[in-house]
Amino acid sequence: MIYRIAGDEQTAHENAREVCLEQTVELPGSMLAAGELREKVVGKIEACDRTGENAYRAVISYAVETTGFELPQLLNVIFGNTSMKAGIRVEDLSLSDSLRKAFHGPRFGREGLRLLLDKPEGPILGAALKPMGHPPKALAETVYRLALGGVEIIKDDHGLGNQSFAPFEERVERCVESVRRAQRETGRRSLYIPNVTGPVDEALARAQFAVRRGAGGVEIAPGLAGWDTLRLLRDAEDIQAPIFFHPALLGTYTISREFGVALPVLFGKIPRLAGADAVIFTNYGGRFPTSRYDCQLLKEAAVQQEAGHKPVFLMPGGGMTLGRIPEIVDFYGEDVIILISGGLFTSGPDLIENCRKFRRAIEIS
Amino acid sequence: MIYRIAGDEQTAHENAREVCLEQTVELPGSMLAAGELREKVVGKIEACDRTGENAYRAVISYAVETTGFELPQLLNVIFGNTSMKAGIRVEDLSLSDSLRKAFHGPRFGREGLRLLLDKPEGPILGAALKPMGHPPKALAETVYRLALGGVEIIKDDHGLGNQSFAPFEERVERCVESVRRAQRETGRRSLYIPNVTGPVDEALARAQFAVRRGAGGVEIAPGLAGWDTLRLLRDAEDIQAPIFFHPALLGTYTISREFGVALPVLFGKIPRLAGADAVIFTNYGGRFPTSRYDCQLLKEAAVQQEAGHKPVFLMPGGGMTLGRIPEIVDFYGEDVIILISGGLFTSGPDLIENCRKFRRAIEIS
Repeated sequence: MIYRIAGDEQTAHENAREVCLEQTVELPGSMLAAGELREKVVGKIEACDRTGENAYRAVISYAVETTGFELPQLLNVIFGNTSMKAGIRVEDLSLSDSLRKAFHGPRFGREGLRLLLDKPEGPILGAALKPMGHPPKALAETVYRLALGGVEIIKDDHGLGNQSFAPFEERVERCVESVRRAQRETGRRSLYIPNVTGPVDEALARAQFAVRRGAGGVEIAPGLAGWDTLRLLRDAEDIQAPIFFHPALLGTYTISREFGVALPVLFGKIPRLAGADAVIFTNYGGRFPTSRYDCQLLKEAAVQQEAGHKPVFLMPGGGMTLGRIPEIVDFYGEDVIILISGGLFTSGPDLIENCRKFRRAIEIS
Repeated sequence: MIYRIAGDEQTAHENAREVCLEQTVELPGSMLAAGELREKVVGKIEACDRTGENAYRAVISYAVETTGFELPQLLNVIFGNTSMKAGIRVEDLSLSDSLRKAFHGPRFGREGLRLLLDKPEGPILGAALKPMGHPPKALAETVYRLALGGVEIIKDDHGLGNQSFAPFEERVERCVESVRRAQRETGRRSLYIPNVTGPVDEALARAQFAVRRGAGGVEIAPGLAGWDTLRLLRDAEDIQAPIFFHPALLGTYTISREFGVALPVLFGKIPRLAGADAVIFTNYGGRFPTSRYDCQLLKEAAVQQEAGHKPVFLMPGGGMTLGRIPEIVDFYGEDVIILISGGLFTSGPDLIENCRKFRRAIEIS
């Protein structure tokens, strides 16, 4: 793991040594005699170098056995107790092959998702189905219009759960029917991606229901439903559908440079490891404070060679407008799902026509 | 909900309005005509007052239906997307009775845990079983000594999962046997609390196994295993044992005054709502930067009248020493579990004797 440690040289080295203990044996170094525990369990500082004013970069390695090859405990070794300290931030991960292979990564990845869409190339247009409060029938009508207008990925707003406004099962059935109806008319494919974030004993059942009824994938927010729920969906043999990661509740980790977890790790490396096929996140320059630098690193994390794990689709959103499409495609390349949210609904009175405007903008970009 | 918003008056009011939309319909206010959606779904600003320089306190209410009466979606309504914004922090929760009743709160609470321990009054001594890396036999020997020395709550270090060093089932069986053996010798009760944090499809099974084998409770870290896993354990009819909350990976939320979630909410109100009987957290004045002020509010959150939810035991830890016991008891009162970690192991060569020193300090405090 790579940590950023704030402070002078002495503080940085002290904190790096602390991390080695805190994340493993949780005992003071003075209590550990030389021997097996110190050799095989306590983290090791591989490097601790100054990177700027009051900033050090510590590379710390842990024995893979400490993780038990389980995602929650892997997260714990990375940052469990140290999350409670100011001045230490997870900057990057580098996992051994044995650990990586314990996880399966994306089932579909970019290529698989393109096959489902029958779209071998070009940027993809995505939209969030909203608003919370509308009944299934109205939401399904919106899905129909989005699909008619050429939106290829239509995902539930992550706030659509199983509320009385729009119960999960009825919503899924109606919205799946909408994309089918639109496809019969246009001949073009769209995928409806319901949000299955919910109680831990129901998320899998919701995903199974959705896939049986013909949904094009499922959306899950691990900050709400637990990181391992994403992994569970990925490993479930009966969920042969792409998984869309949503970052709800996880933003806090990414805000400070001095503590938390770097965005490319939290929204890139970890979701990909756990099995996300596409990652929804707030793009730079939108209504959230994500930096362009983090987006650059996220872009790299999405495709980096990782023990055979497939590249993951990035789905930047959070206040994207028509005018920004050329820039987004230029920045992310054509392997991107551009998530237009409010923009689609607000750029004119006719939703179908608005979608078409976005499609044209994407096609000429 | 109560949010702290950083900024001048205009920023605060704008951000409060943004939160109302972002946490519900995720559409610009300009798109919402007066009508049902605006009336029944969008959050409402009940107050937005200046509390200090560049700081406002916004009280925002949401329709209970937005939560679907499910914990993950409740967390989402509170802070899902807004977690991605700097300058807005969840300061307090106030839930309606209908919502509160959808959750069951602690099954045991303070009184129930005291019954299990057969200890009607006085502060309780707790210890973390460590270190990761020791085999079950060595850990069980440590449990035996801790129990002989009078430690009443012996909980796994939260880093003990199901690693090859000390597989879960063997560890539980041996450690339960240790507390029984010590009890036969001393006549005093101790509870062994194994950590069941793990994959989402295994945490419940681990808890069931532990309880069947006679463990005195279970420990879960929702930051690692998912918040709703705590609720699942609480609602499982076959887990008739107290649940100990551990804050691993959640620290980041509590560090800044300007964003994240206030500690008394994150480690107090939410765990109690979800069903924790005891809350492990890093006390002020230890090796973590928790403030005394937050501990004061946490203390209040643990007992506040909440739709019949039982008071939760606080278990301050994170670098507690012998000398601080009188102060801790003075601060928290006698309804406290004092969690001594490294301190027990380092205060002298004989672990049993160290425990007895701590016990005496607690008894005279």
